[in-house]
Amino acid sequence: MAKESFVENIADIETDFPQWYTDVCKKTQLVDYGPVKGTMVIRPYGYAIWENIQHEMDARFKATGVQNAYFPLLIPMSFFTKEAEHVEGFAPEVAVVTHAGGEELAEPLAIRPTSETIIGNMYSKWLQSYRDLPILINQWANVMRWEKTTRPFLRTSEFLWQEGHTCHASEEEAMEETIKMLEVYKEFAENVLAIPVICGKKTEKEKFAGAVATYGMEAMMKDGKSLQSGTSHYLGQNFAKAFDIKFLDKDGVQKYAYTTSWGTSTRMIGAVIMAHGDARGLVLPPKVAPYQAVIVPIAAKKAGVLEKCAEVKSLLEKAGVRVVLDDTDNSPGWKFNEWEMKGVPVRVEIGPRDIEAGKAMLFRRDTCEKNECALDGIEDTVAKLLEIIQVDMLEAARCRRDEKIVRAKDMAGILAGVEGGNFVKAGWCGCRECEDKIKAETNATARVMCEELIDEFCAVCGKKAKHTVYFARAY
Amino acid sequence: MAKESFVENIADIETDFPQWYTDVCKKTQLVDYGPVKGTMVIRPYGYAIWENIQHEMDARFKATGVQNAYFPLLIPMSFFTKEAEHVEGFAPEVAVVTHAGGEELAEPLAIRPTSETIIGNMYSKWLQSYRDLPILINQWANVMRWEKTTRPFLRTSEFLWQEGHTCHASEEEAMEETIKMLEVYKEFAENVLAIPVICGKKTEKEKFAGAVATYGMEAMMKDGKSLQSGTSHYLGQNFAKAFDIKFLDKDGVQKYAYTTSWGTSTRMIGAVIMAHGDARGLVLPPKVAPYQAVIVPIAAKKAGVLEKCAEVKSLLEKAGVRVVLDDTDNSPGWKFNEWEMKGVPVRVEIGPRDIEAGKAMLFRRDTCEKNECALDGIEDTVAKLLEIIQVDMLEAARCRRDEKIVRAKDMAGILAGVEGGNFVKAGWCGCRECEDKIKAETNATARVMCEELIDEFCAVCGKKAKHTVYFARAY
Repeated sequence: MAKESFVENIADIETDFPQWYTDVCKKTQLVDYGPVKGTMVIRPYGYAIWENIQHEMDARFKATGVQNAYFPLLIPMSFFTKEAEHVEGFAPEVAVVTHAGGEELAEPLAIRPTSETIIGNMYSKWLQSYRDLPILINQWANVMRWEKTTRPFLRTSEFLWQEGHTCHASEEEAMEETIKMLEVYKEFAENVLAIPVICGKKTEKEKFAGAVATYGMEAMMKDGKSLQSGTSHYLGQNFAKAFDIKFLDKDGVQKYAYTTSWGTSTRMIGAVIMAHGDARGLVLPPKVAPYQAVIVPIAAKKAGVLEKCAEVKSLLEKAGVRVVLDDTDNSPGWKFNEWEMKGVPVRVEIGPRDIEAGKAMLFRRDTCEKNECALDGIEDTVAKLLEIIQVDMLEAARCRRDEKIVRAKDMAGILAGVEGGNFVKAGWCGCRECEDKIKAETNATARVMCEELIDEFCAVCGKKAKHTVYFARAY
Repeated sequence: MAKESFVENIADIETDFPQWYTDVCKKTQLVDYGPVKGTMVIRPYGYAIWENIQHEMDARFKATGVQNAYFPLLIPMSFFTKEAEHVEGFAPEVAVVTHAGGEELAEPLAIRPTSETIIGNMYSKWLQSYRDLPILINQWANVMRWEKTTRPFLRTSEFLWQEGHTCHASEEEAMEETIKMLEVYKEFAENVLAIPVICGKKTEKEKFAGAVATYGMEAMMKDGKSLQSGTSHYLGQNFAKAFDIKFLDKDGVQKYAYTTSWGTSTRMIGAVIMAHGDARGLVLPPKVAPYQAVIVPIAAKKAGVLEKCAEVKSLLEKAGVRVVLDDTDNSPGWKFNEWEMKGVPVRVEIGPRDIEAGKAMLFRRDTCEKNECALDGIEDTVAKLLEIIQVDMLEAARCRRDEKIVRAKDMAGILAGVEGGNFVKAGWCGCRECEDKIKAETNATARVMCEELIDEFCAVCGKKAKHTVYFARAY
């Protein structure tokens, strides 16, 4: 693969986080800009992370009975107008095909920004009886939302995602599915991405266009901003009524189904970068790292060094570790920098003296600690270390996050909190005016609401609080 | 999932093969028509086949050093005009985005019909030195080609595929890659899809728009027609020159790279249906079957039957068999028909008398043979039977195919051959006129050329033959 220079520095993470992010994305060859404004190319190193995410997540979906399918990219524009809120939310962002096969089309076609409409159309054909329920389908696909300001992984006109779409006989079942998938996302974020997330219901203002209720999971980035990393929508009968998704129930009566949808995307790669990265570059959790370990030979030209490195590589592979041996001509120091920037969780250094002593050096990317280990049984040592790193990274991220959750009782407190790079918990009366006022004065938005009421009064208007809300600036 | 009636018959395979195909596709719930003409929805049962195909093929790519990546869906129209033959071949089929985000675009964008142009554009940015070579990248993606006549899996405006794109320092290396990937396809087709394929070079007329040479693999369907199931293109420096893909070679000279591309698609699902299917419906090779075995309880209400079925299911799962237990209220006869139509390789029947005797009945879908087996060790028996079926299906398909390859020495022979549902091998002088004449008079096209010269003369003009060609009608 093409190599760019790793010698130039990436921007300082403390003083210029946005530039640090862009530098890391580009210099580690995760991603590049496409020729059309707002598009991205996911390069092999970035795509390998996505493949690991897909692999882990897909297994979790299937364990709940979900099957994969594939629905068409192009949706008749008329479908969008069938659900009033939905069209309002998505029409302005849609890319439209007007010509095909050398002719103008009779009806313009939208490139899917999300697939509730076209999937609803198909479900209305497939669903007949209560025996056909539930319908539990997911698709892995590309979607397109024309955005003005874009950033790799976080906001691009095209991105990759999964979207689950389910159909149920009752409100209870559909709500249960909505929450179940939110929990799948949360467990995945914590145990695979090592990112602690805050889950809860979205406010009316922030919910999905066409949903009855949206539940989201929010992840804290190192600059204290929030990244919405997954959402699960309870759609009630909104789309069932718009697309005539009906079934003959046990009692012989035709009824509308209750539907849900839920999605996560390549945004999660952005979350991994910004939740774990440091001054040296990426820090990847072992479960999604393309390479979990890199072997760097020291004094590679000395007899036996490369042979021993190859032997260790083969042992690690047999132990199920994704490993790369860097046997290029670059200096060890250069290799250390390169693979640290690329976030490989464990570095194994092997030189002539190590071999003589039956030892190797192990470097942990997350803590930057270096320790000796015996060559004998090194595959088990590394495998175990990877498990420890996975757990420790979650714990470290949780500590960082918890230190940056503050409470506020008034607008000044909210402003001071978000200015300080925190998530701010505050009471809220539930009215749109107060929500808008916070946005206007602090540039923070309501991320999610949580169950417990921590304050009696709304931090804005002082009236009785109905909810506790996490406010934060967000990507 | 939604159930359609399986009671109605599918059309007769002998007398109405096209209708049989459509019926099988729809009634087994592999696929459905999308709302936009020419589009398809790949339903869970069909998509599970695609997932198995992807899984098997992706591992083979990676074993050759190929990495996956993802390039944008939308390509500036101007890119197409950079390679003269390419634009001529693809421009008429392109779907065009003219509006996005509520505005008319400055330059119309094509939905990728294939990605040589946009990937070439990126490679020109990434490639600098001979050290960066080879570049070996594949992407799994959707593509769009606006077609007038469409059929599920075989020809639809949008389909799913993989496209590999590689870059090399020399002609030799690029040619080697082209042939290597053709061989990967062939091994895959035979050992996974159980379809014997004929591989060879395409004629100038049939080659990929922009290629120096195209190599294809052709599979014989049960009606004797050919289905192009994969192609590998040697692109020479055509795209390198069009997109400025250059590198600084060891000798300090800037040189254009040599590139290749190679692809297979959801068409392969059509190949599986038409190469193996029979009067009862699908016959799926075990390696791609969503379910490799179905357990049907006999007298399911008798004590112990469902328990024993569940126990066997769990044993089979542990042995790595993809298995489903049909414990619905339908009669065993109905279930037999349903799962035979769905092509499940092995059916396990378990009833009270079987349990008493410590036996079960095993039905092989490919041969429709039924044999007793001991319940004790049934998981090994079934696993071994699946291996046997996989091998036997390839062998059976090879026999069917070899019986239907005939030789012809003149146009009358070619016509008679293809009318009889055969592949016809004939000598060809190499001129376009003779190729066109065969197409005009027999509706057969040159599928691939083979190495050995079997005839001294061209079957059309009688001049000296330069090639032996497989002629066939094709999907």
